[in-house]
Amino acid sequence: MILEGVRIELPSNKPILLLKEENGNRYLPIWIGPYEASAIALEMSNIKTPRPMTHDLIINIINNLKISIDNIEITEIRNNTFYAIINIMNTDKKVIKVDSRPSDAIATAVRSKCDIYAAEQVLESGGLRIQSIEDEVKKFKNFLDNIEPEDFKNNFENK
Amino acid sequence: MILEGVRIELPSNKPILLLKEENGNRYLPIWIGPYEASAIALEMSNIKTPRPMTHDLIINIINNLKISIDNIEITEIRNNTFYAIINIMNTDKKVIKVDSRPSDAIATAVRSKCDIYAAEQVLESGGLRIQSIEDEVKKFKNFLDNIEPEDFKNNFENK
Repeated sequence: MILEGVRIELPSNKPILLLKEENGNRYLPIWIGPYEASAIALEMSNIKTPRPMTHDLIINIINNLKISIDNIEITEIRNNTFYAIINIMNTDKKVIKVDSRPSDAIATAVRSKCDIYAAEQVLESGGLRIQSIEDEVKKFKNFLDNIEPEDFKNNFENK
Repeated sequence: MILEGVRIELPSNKPILLLKEENGNRYLPIWIGPYEASAIALEMSNIKTPRPMTHDLIINIINNLKISIDNIEITEIRNNTFYAIINIMNTDKKVIKVDSRPSDAIATAVRSKCDIYAAEQVLESGGLRIQSIEDEVKKFKNFLDNIEPEDFKNNFENK
């Protein structure tokens, strides 16, 4: 999947992330938390914070342990909740699966530049195949083009 | 150090965490971000969320890799910013140091039940030795006694 971006949906003021099928035309929108949205948006916009934010810490832990994130996968939709897995390659080159919210999985994926997958069942039940989606995608791109660190300032520590 | 708690300071509406020296009478207050404050408060109050929050994910990664957090340490105050380190014991029983904000370090420490240390230099420059601190500590305890998941609902994902 390709991560098109995150943006704040109005008037609900809720953040949403949008994935697009790489070899297809289905889109997968997922409602996420504001903190996770800022973690994804800041990284996509190459905005560096003075101190490591929580998802930067996850990547620092992974890197310092000399292991890597193989990929992440949106595995399931159950009772309107999306489930994801982070696949980590350990020092024995064995893949360790860690249960995650999609937002945390994607915030770590954009930092580790690993592949993002979605199960066919997820795309079937949660995917959108709308012709006018291009306008929607433009909104995501415009949002990311115009964000400033101040947009998320409530998420930063003062000291 | 003993983690006394976190609370929202009024009227600034900013979250603060309070550590107390285990064998002494110095207190260490640290301003933190709202998301990290809720991560610490929810765990201290034994409130479980339906899906793993970001710091739960860190602990799940550590546990699934069959390694552990040895301890965390508040190492330094520089330009009014507190620095911390998470000491992780890897599979070779070697301690790996990971740079962290104090809030993230403490949110992982309360979940892994590891020791919390503060460097003497930090206690000297950031510590408080106030007789009336007992009233302050009570405020922290009252805050934790009365929180509800709804207090932090903006931090949860809706789907």
